Amino acid sequence: MPDLERATLPLDLTLDLTVDGVTLTAALCDVPSVSGDEKPLADAVEVALRTLPHLEVLRDGDAIVARTHLGRAERVLLAGHLDTVPIAGNLPTRLEGGATEGVLHGRGTVDMKGGVAVQLRIAATVPEPSRDLTFVFYDHEEVDAARNGLGRLARNHPDWIAADFAVLLEPTSALVEGGCNGTIRVEVTTRGVAAHSARAWMGHNAIHDAGRVLARLQAYAPREVAVDGLVYRESLNAVTVHGGIANNVIPDRCVVGVNYRFAPDRSLVEAESHLRELFDGFEVEVVDGSDGARPGLDQPAAAAFLVAIGGEPRPKYGWTDVARFSALGVPAVNFGPGDALLAHADDERCPAQDILRCEQALRRWLTA
Amino acid sequence: MPDLERATLPLDLTLDLTVDGVTLTAALCDVPSVSGDEKPLADAVEVALRTLPHLEVLRDGDAIVARTHLGRAERVLLAGHLDTVPIAGNLPTRLEGGATEGVLHGRGTVDMKGGVAVQLRIAATVPEPSRDLTFVFYDHEEVDAARNGLGRLARNHPDWIAADFAVLLEPTSALVEGGCNGTIRVEVTTRGVAAHSARAWMGHNAIHDAGRVLARLQAYAPREVAVDGLVYRESLNAVTVHGGIANNVIPDRCVVGVNYRFAPDRSLVEAESHLRELFDGFEVEVVDGSDGARPGLDQPAAAAFLVAIGGEPRPKYGWTDVARFSALGVPAVNFGPGDALLAHADDERCPAQDILRCEQALRRWLTA
Repeated sequence: MPDLERATLPLDLTLDLTVDGVTLTAALCDVPSVSGDEKPLADAVEVALRTLPHLEVLRDGDAIVARTHLGRAERVLLAGHLDTVPIAGNLPTRLEGGATEGVLHGRGTVDMKGGVAVQLRIAATVPEPSRDLTFVFYDHEEVDAARNGLGRLARNHPDWIAADFAVLLEPTSALVEGGCNGTIRVEVTTRGVAAHSARAWMGHNAIHDAGRVLARLQAYAPREVAVDGLVYRESLNAVTVHGGIANNVIPDRCVVGVNYRFAPDRSLVEAESHLRELFDGFEVEVVDGSDGARPGLDQPAAAAFLVAIGGEPRPKYGWTDVARFSALGVPAVNFGPGDALLAHADDERCPAQDILRCEQALRRWLTA
Repeated sequence: MPDLERATLPLDLTLDLTVDGVTLTAALCDVPSVSGDEKPLADAVEVALRTLPHLEVLRDGDAIVARTHLGRAERVLLAGHLDTVPIAGNLPTRLEGGATEGVLHGRGTVDMKGGVAVQLRIAATVPEPSRDLTFVFYDHEEVDAARNGLGRLARNHPDWIAADFAVLLEPTSALVEGGCNGTIRVEVTTRGVAAHSARAWMGHNAIHDAGRVLARLQAYAPREVAVDGLVYRESLNAVTVHGGIANNVIPDRCVVGVNYRFAPDRSLVEAESHLRELFDGFEVEVVDGSDGARPGLDQPAAAAFLVAIGGEPRPKYGWTDVARFSALGVPAVNFGPGDALLAHADDERCPAQDILRCEQALRRWLTA
């Protein structure tokens, strides 16, 4: 499907960064860039950025980095990914209503070419920002973490993405969402002894034992933790349970899959210890996990950002690439156009106002 | 496979009922009769029985019934099925050791052509039994209950199988096992509200609720109930549990499969009520179930049987066709050669002594 879509593109694809953000979002969406097929769009972004004399432009694969060198006291990073999930008959884009009050429909409008358009508009229109700027456009965000373009940049060129504060333009309905909870998944296994269910006393029921695991989960009181001024709410849940092999056999094994979303005051290692303590006496195996991210709202750049944006920041509960920045020592927030609940949806759509307001807010902050 | 095996049979298949029970068992086993392919063996059994002038011989499909009409005060029924589970390279039979002290290996030796051989030997050698006798040889026992030949006889010709007491020659290592527990299977379902696991408070966890179902199972004290002098031990177990659809979704449904093996003082309807009471507050659906069978050891024929056989009778925990007789108002016990744990095994094998002892015990009882 991506190849088919690409075949319909003009060969001399150019991006005009002087148009308004909504028109630019539509132009970006109409260059399909499903994960793995980012090259045409990355090429176009690179060519457009190279026309801007105040920016140094760098490239690694299909990730593009552009930055100012103005000797400012702080450096701020604006990041967004170029790829989308597969197209679901929702391209080309379609604007319903006016160019400022309407809604732009189509794959990528929310996740996250609206944010990329805002990045490009700031790059083109703020040549002398109050803070040095680094723009990052990266590939492979919508696939497994090992291929993530931001992770590749962090490995290959950590200096390219060094900064004091980062804004990830993932959709937040143009509100500031700070940091994110971490996540860890473990499997808690109980083991018994198989027997015919007509002679249950010959065996030991592993599913019955799993009831004690579930009882601990049900009795658990999740924390609410203030971190850098935002209150993170934790969750601890059984997300799967599987046991038993036949209707007449006492089950000898039951596995409860548990997901713990933990506040960013706690590391992944601490989260694992917490679960091992909670499930003391049971077999616990870690399946996967990721550290969370502190919001970093105590940084000067972040404080100025909040003043410029206005409104109350909210904590981010879902895991996003802000955690990658956090792991690199760069505090980060999410701030971008579109409702995150519409990301990946067939009827993905973004209010024009979200795009325009994000651009205005960032310009206000960076030109103050 | 059955067709291939059948093609190797002699066309003029005859059973010689004057040979010893072990030799006869081998001859019966060497006529493969996997469920659905009983006809050649049923034909041979019918032909052999028709040579016995003291018996009336009846047939329905591949089920053969033979009976005396001596005007005795009681009628006793001896039943066995002709079919086996599929052959696993374990035919023809092979006798290891002597004809009286050895072990006969092969499909059907335990389940249950050893028992069928004993029936045929009694039919051939006890022309004037102390009780009127009905011999039942039936088809389709090893497949789904709807095709069971005994069930068909009960529907088509209930008078053919009327009796005061029945002995089912299923393998019991030549010990008397009386009646059987009933069995019922239910699914206990908990329902919640799905949500992203990063925002668990937006949903309700159905797996956590299932913990309360498991807690009731773990706290449950199964009954031990004396019925007609035998103590039946019950079992109540979760045999399966399944919940959850993804690692980041709060599960909205969890299903616990429960198997209750209940003593024959309780009917299937009563067992269901008991479970609905136990799982009050939860959604309970009956999947399947069968009444158990009282051992009927208080019947005169049964009492005389126990005296003749000697030894202590045991309760049967697994469900067998004795429950069909019980449902027809005929008390029944299991008594046959071979270890039930070797039924269906690739190395299915039966001690010659079991076959000989069963035959002797029944002859002693029926000629006293």
